[in-house]
Amino acid sequence: MEKNGFSFEISHAGRGLARAGVITTPHGVIQTPCFIPVGTKATVKSVLPETMKSLGSQALLANAYHLYLQPGADLIDEAGGLSTFMNWPGPTVTDSGGFQVLSLGVGFKKVLAMDATTFRADDVVAHKKDRLAHVDDEGVTFKSHIDGSMHRFTPEISMQVQHQIGADIIFAFDECTTLHNTRKYQEGAIERTSAWAIRCLDEHKKLTDTRKEKPYQALFGVIQGAQYEDLRRAAAKDLGSMSSSGISFDGFGIGGALDKDSLGRIVSWVNQELPEDKPKHLLGIGAPEDLFTGIENGIDTFDCVTPSRIARTSSVYTFEGRFNISNAPYRRAFKPIDANCDCYTCANYSRAYVHHLFRAKEILAATLATIHNERFILRLVDQIRQAIIDGTYGDMKADFLSRYSIRRPGAH
Amino acid sequence: MEKNGFSFEISHAGRGLARAGVITTPHGVIQTPCFIPVGTKATVKSVLPETMKSLGSQALLANAYHLYLQPGADLIDEAGGLSTFMNWPGPTVTDSGGFQVLSLGVGFKKVLAMDATTFRADDVVAHKKDRLAHVDDEGVTFKSHIDGSMHRFTPEISMQVQHQIGADIIFAFDECTTLHNTRKYQEGAIERTSAWAIRCLDEHKKLTDTRKEKPYQALFGVIQGAQYEDLRRAAAKDLGSMSSSGISFDGFGIGGALDKDSLGRIVSWVNQELPEDKPKHLLGIGAPEDLFTGIENGIDTFDCVTPSRIARTSSVYTFEGRFNISNAPYRRAFKPIDANCDCYTCANYSRAYVHHLFRAKEILAATLATIHNERFILRLVDQIRQAIIDGTYGDMKADFLSRYSIRRPGAH
Repeated sequence: MEKNGFSFEISHAGRGLARAGVITTPHGVIQTPCFIPVGTKATVKSVLPETMKSLGSQALLANAYHLYLQPGADLIDEAGGLSTFMNWPGPTVTDSGGFQVLSLGVGFKKVLAMDATTFRADDVVAHKKDRLAHVDDEGVTFKSHIDGSMHRFTPEISMQVQHQIGADIIFAFDECTTLHNTRKYQEGAIERTSAWAIRCLDEHKKLTDTRKEKPYQALFGVIQGAQYEDLRRAAAKDLGSMSSSGISFDGFGIGGALDKDSLGRIVSWVNQELPEDKPKHLLGIGAPEDLFTGIENGIDTFDCVTPSRIARTSSVYTFEGRFNISNAPYRRAFKPIDANCDCYTCANYSRAYVHHLFRAKEILAATLATIHNERFILRLVDQIRQAIIDGTYGDMKADFLSRYSIRRPGAH
Repeated sequence: MEKNGFSFEISHAGRGLARAGVITTPHGVIQTPCFIPVGTKATVKSVLPETMKSLGSQALLANAYHLYLQPGADLIDEAGGLSTFMNWPGPTVTDSGGFQVLSLGVGFKKVLAMDATTFRADDVVAHKKDRLAHVDDEGVTFKSHIDGSMHRFTPEISMQVQHQIGADIIFAFDECTTLHNTRKYQEGAIERTSAWAIRCLDEHKKLTDTRKEKPYQALFGVIQGAQYEDLRRAAAKDLGSMSSSGISFDGFGIGGALDKDSLGRIVSWVNQELPEDKPKHLLGIGAPEDLFTGIENGIDTFDCVTPSRIARTSSVYTFEGRFNISNAPYRRAFKPIDANCDCYTCANYSRAYVHHLFRAKEILAATLATIHNERFILRLVDQIRQAIIDGTYGDMKADFLSRYSIRRPGAH
């Protein structure tokens, strides 16, 4: 399946739906399964792109919503596209803005629970009371989280914005719901997302044809449906076979509210229905234990802000679990964050030094912790990939999870 | 003049007192004249040490006062010394804390005008009213700028702290005065600084003898005397020939309040009196035009926070002057900060991208601007060095200053 420089080949099948493969894009290849670090505003916060490359990052994902507001998609277009603008010569991805217009666009921090561990009940109340994003059948009107100005995203605008940004992989504009919307609302949202998917294909085709000199951009459809098996399966069947203006989706994203317990089930429902030979991306998921769940249920790529976001609050991964390096016990810990880690930070700095940087509010604290966390997750997915290729996935997973404790903060 | 791995050789004499040479330290050599970037708290803010190396940084200077308070000099000693702690394998320098205990230690931001352009009259009032540092003949009692706790530095404590930190070049503890102290006060301060210099030599000898397994640390005396020629000359003669416990100073620092107009005169008075064959360091000076003034009056090394400090407020150097890259005209400027600059930032990023990062409050803004500014100053001093060697210093200076405008903010 080669299309204008974009293709996906499955090289190895693993347990269940797991597989290893290669996505080829105009800016280079992505060996899958792959974790794609997030550079929200065209920068992975606090880390140079060359450093991300040296950590094994194969691709970066930026957010269309953020770049549309600042500095503006037209400016990135004028700069030569996202890859040139941010000095990342490899593959790039943008999401559609569907998640952000409904979460950031409402004037408070977070309303959608992409991760059950960060969800709070009062978010829902806030969602109802202060909602500043309004969904209609045509699109979403929302308020900028930066200056409160009003904006509107439609499937067409999302495609235009993502074409201007120019990432190798872009996503269809979808309505992202929460687990707390009613069944009836979810049904309506699925219908809207389906209609929007067709409009995205049409607009994408039009833009691709009018900008032939630019590298081809692959369009992924996004499957919603919350926790409902029938809705998820129907949405996957719908988008999986969808074709309009003579084109179909190059791959698929699984979006919307997912909690840890249902993650594997939801992903497997969707991937059982989607065409096997197209790449599947799990949007916004990146906890170590969830990577295993996603991959064995057919996910090829992930993106998530968690490794860098928690790094900036001094939380670091180890193969035995997470800990907060700002805590007092690490003041005189002259060993690396994780003796088994091969990252630059662990090779060159002690816990005591990183602890010092956080206590002294030094910028380099974020840099060193982010380097470690991103490498930890990138390497874990690389190890999973290798285990699929070697046929040792089961042992590798059991070994990792026997050591890795999900909830043992402060244990080190 | 070789002493336990420390030496200084003058290789080329230039116009006036200018010279090129090589300082050898246990952690490597420093080709002089040399600009030494400042890593106040054992990190050059926002930049990895390898990046500093790639910019041509030969040595780094950290502040004994800051490291004494946080994380503690004993902790750095336990970590294996400053070089190991901060992952900078090259030469390191610490100042004595003399400047900081009297400026930061008084509970407000800045009282000493090291640079006339940053000086404000109300600082002096604050100095008198809120003074929380008390100088007596034995030392200085001061209040931590971090938590308000009381501390005391004496010449002996400064030596002990700097031996624990373990930099290759350390400075004698001096009383740093302002241009606004009375002549009578300056005379007393010079006497104290002289007595403290002897105590520093004695303590340094004792510590060097008891820590024979550690790399040799070179001790530089500090010349004060404000704007008074007789005091500066007397202080230079005094410390230049000073010997106690069988040792003398390995080099000298020129400290205290200096304004732009008197800088050259003061430095030449001092360097006419000091032994020619020892390295001279100008403390806290780094503006491009001042580097020329210092070097042609016999300065071998400089340190200054300015390149990184102004970078974090989005001010960047070019060969035509400084400008603020956050300003509106740079939003769509798709050329590098300076087309004549060979730094990583200018090679890979546009003004528009750096502008975007500052506007979006991204950490990488500080990193990219600091890389550029540090490289600009490091390269300028390297170019001056080469011009001294080539015998083209006069032309090189005239060419630079004909293009470089000291005060043309926003001109680009």
